[in-house]
Amino acid sequence: MSTPAVDLNSDLGEGFGIWRLGDDEALLDIVTSANVACGFHAGDPDILRRVCTRAAERGVVIGAQVSYRDLAGFGRRSIDVPAATLTNDVIYQIGALDAFARIAGSRVGYVKPHGALYNRIVHDEIQAAAVVDAVHTYDPSLPVLGLPGSVWLRLAAEAGLTTVGEAFADRGYTANATLVPRSQPGALVTDADAVAARVVRLVTDGVLEAVDGTAVSVQARSVCVHGDSPGAVVMAAAVRNALQDAGVAISPFAS
Amino acid sequence: MSTPAVDLNSDLGEGFGIWRLGDDEALLDIVTSANVACGFHAGDPDILRRVCTRAAERGVVIGAQVSYRDLAGFGRRSIDVPAATLTNDVIYQIGALDAFARIAGSRVGYVKPHGALYNRIVHDEIQAAAVVDAVHTYDPSLPVLGLPGSVWLRLAAEAGLTTVGEAFADRGYTANATLVPRSQPGALVTDADAVAARVVRLVTDGVLEAVDGTAVSVQARSVCVHGDSPGAVVMAAAVRNALQDAGVAISPFAS
Amino acid sequence: MSTPAVDLNSDLGEGFGIWRLGDDEALLDIVTSANVACGFHAGDPDILRRVCTRAAERGVVIGAQVSYRDLAGFGRRSIDVPAATLTNDVIYQIGALDAFARIAGSRVGYVKPHGALYNRIVHDEIQAAAVVDAVHTYDPSLPVLGLPGSVWLRLAAEAGLTTVGEAFADRGYTANATLVPRSQPGALVTDADAVAARVVRLVTDGVLEAVDGTAVSVQARSVCVHGDSPGAVVMAAAVRNALQDAGVAISPFAS
Amino acid sequence: MSTPAVDLNSDLGEGFGIWRLGDDEALLDIVTSANVACGFHAGDPDILRRVCTRAAERGVVIGAQVSYRDLAGFGRRSIDVPAATLTNDVIYQIGALDAFARIAGSRVGYVKPHGALYNRIVHDEIQAAAVVDAVHTYDPSLPVLGLPGSVWLRLAAEAGLTTVGEAFADRGYTANATLVPRSQPGALVTDADAVAARVVRLVTDGVLEAVDGTAVSVQARSVCVHGDSPGAVVMAAAVRNALQDAGVAISPFAS
Repeated sequence: MSTPAVDLNSDLGEGFGIWRLGDDEALLDIVTSANVACGFHAGDPDILRRVCTRAAERGVVIGAQVSYRDLAGFGRRSIDVPAATLTNDVIYQIGALDAFARIAGSRVGYVKPHGALYNRIVHDEIQAAAVVDAVHTYDPSLPVLGLPGSVWLRLAAEAGLTTVGEAFADRGYTANATLVPRSQPGALVTDADAVAARVVRLVTDGVLEAVDGTAVSVQARSVCVHGDSPGAVVMAAAVRNALQDAGVAISPFAS
Repeated sequence: MSTPAVDLNSDLGEGFGIWRLGDDEALLDIVTSANVACGFHAGDPDILRRVCTRAAERGVVIGAQVSYRDLAGFGRRSIDVPAATLTNDVIYQIGALDAFARIAGSRVGYVKPHGALYNRIVHDEIQAAAVVDAVHTYDPSLPVLGLPGSVWLRLAAEAGLTTVGEAFADRGYTANATLVPRSQPGALVTDADAVAARVVRLVTDGVLEAVDGTAVSVQARSVCVHGDSPGAVVMAAAVRNALQDAGVAISPFAS
Repeated sequence: MSTPAVDLNSDLGEGFGIWRLGDDEALLDIVTSANVACGFHAGDPDILRRVCTRAAERGVVIGAQVSYRDLAGFGRRSIDVPAATLTNDVIYQIGALDAFARIAGSRVGYVKPHGALYNRIVHDEIQAAAVVDAVHTYDPSLPVLGLPGSVWLRLAAEAGLTTVGEAFADRGYTANATLVPRSQPGALVTDADAVAARVVRLVTDGVLEAVDGTAVSVQARSVCVHGDSPGAVVMAAAVRNALQDAGVAISPFAS
Repeated sequence: MSTPAVDLNSDLGEGFGIWRLGDDEALLDIVTSANVACGFHAGDPDILRRVCTRAAERGVVIGAQVSYRDLAGFGRRSIDVPAATLTNDVIYQIGALDAFARIAGSRVGYVKPHGALYNRIVHDEIQAAAVVDAVHTYDPSLPVLGLPGSVWLRLAAEAGLTTVGEAFADRGYTANATLVPRSQPGALVTDADAVAARVVRLVTDGVLEAVDGTAVSVQARSVCVHGDSPGAVVMAAAVRNALQDAGVAISPFAS
């Protein structure tokens, strides 16, 4: 019988210029996969260099956290970008990040869309296909990370890409295994120990308790944790410690 | 006795979004090396994709025309960027362009700084070293293109990079083999036939006639031509035709 | 019996940095209202200064052509900007342009949204209300220009703003007085004389011939002409000349 | 005998999009003049709206903290902007901020350049004149704030503008009344009580103790305090309290 394994991923490098967001240093000691901003919603070249260097030093896999071109909106605003432009925007970002990953002795190991793009390609066939096209064109061996059941992962799989589903450590789930919208009660689980226990159960049993108490089946090779507040880092560390205590192997899905 | 050879280089991909500058299509049939804008002074991902694709189809070598981050100023304003940031800005640009070059079946074959950065590193040791560091870190086999006698080419050579000097087809030269400042008489040669004759003499004899009539020795493996006006394209074509008529091999310096 | 009157409006100042779009000089001799880009989709401060100065010299009324923040997409991509942010983005643009209008001895005389924002607030109540809020907050005496029948003009009128409907000189209309979509036959009228004749009939009789031959009633105090190609300028001039020959007064709707 | 009076100014609104910098709320209860970022080095329209609204509510005077166009460098990098462009960039920023100041019931009350521009126009005649031209063109009744003895204040005065010199609460001074460079010992005074005592002496006696112990005469109608760290806010509050305890009137220089 095999040891269960899970990857922990988090968004990193989300500052710009003088501005910082999140505690990259602390997270790099917790996660196994770093979703690194590529400059379109956050992340300037100095930041990309620093995060890639430190991720490589720690053996954390570097992922391209690609986004709409939207610094002012932090990539959180859906934009009707034509498909061909979206494809090229994504290729540009992966290429730029890959330069820093490679000079650090690593490489871009996967792609995870950010923010509004992440949410839109859960259902938007055209934009999802455009992002798939970008990854496939750049390097068809690159895995992609996203929401289980999304159009994005379905089209990626159809194109021959390796797909990886993720769960969210601190988000509430419905009985249908979808996320509780942020505007509704139960959208967030805020107690670090409760979050840690949920993630352990998810990884060992493949089950999350939904807001209505139902036990729902969720398959996720990766779990997303946050680091944009001191409390978030504490929670991420609690998740890691609980997994280790439960004998779960914490290992990246990509190499 | 060997056939003389020269490379013709020109700036391409210098539009942004809806805006266009120069006739990329016409130039790609004339030059052997394309200095492609990388997004910091001009060049969006759609443009990078298109220019790289068409350059690769024609066997034109793709160079990274790296710049200060300055869309509003088209990279023509000197900026006191700290050295480490400049290094990372250049790596970012090369990486982004390389993605498009590689998916087109080519690769970034050389680096040529643009505009104010080009001019500044003729003499600024710190910024020149920062750009050299970027190229050397990204790929020490990449040749660099620049002004003969510049700090930029000297430091690049000292770092072990292959350096290539260029001449300007339509610029006047002083008796010291420097360019006549644009504010002075004789800065520009505007007659296409005269320009073509000057380039042929430069390539076959290693000599240019200075504004004071002196014959000055100029060693240039590459000649820069322009394409930002209908007249410029006609001049570039005249240069190419005259070189071919003179039995000069027009071939890229990089591969 | 009164002389019929019409305003001619056109988009101006739509370059950025080194890039130009359209023939501002030619249009300023044709139109009575200039929709001036404010920096979010096009238009840098040098351009705003120049266009405002020349518009004021000629007595052309200056309008704020406000847009989504989207230089790379020229404001042609719909963006899900939150309402409060959209309101503030519009106020920022009007204020910036008004500075240049005032130092030229004029002032912003009206507001016309650009591109994707123009199209979205034809039907999107929330974004339309956000733009109305911006204009009303900045100066409730400012007229707004837009598509007859749009949510934008309806909400503006409800808020007490003066609303002005416009027609498009070179666009085909359906029998319902809506524009023929650009993807369908008859979307554009390309013959300058035909366009001129249509505009004269519109202004004098309040009627346009639809693509199916129906005579449709269209009320438009302003007609939009283009200047982004040599042919467009010729057409705009033809419209102006035909109106003058027909005894129509060409006069701005705002002051 | 009159009560001594001083203005306290600080930089506010220096976030962008999701990013924040400094504690605007705390500072608005301490200072009498707010140097508000206008969007070129920091400050998006939502931030401008919020800061202007709250400043107006508290009677804090709003100043335009104008900058080079440089979000990535936070306006801290000197840029060789042509004079005419710099003038227009400054007018654009003042106009945009003035819109928010006016809808909050206030107005832009003065202009203070930021960062690299502040430092450059201490000595650069051409750029200093360009900024003076901008202010004078926009509104010749606007006071300008800057370093005593700078070219900027000299040219502003020659142009007829009201000039206001400022001192820096936490910076060391040389015996010549210039700032100790940040790279040298004594550049910063870090003890809040010491800083407060220095400011009181400056305001009541017109004297600061230089790093070599000399008492130097400094005339400053305004004192700059910072708010970009918890310690900085504590220091700013200590300065205000000490001034009040000493019977100094804390009042804006502009209205």
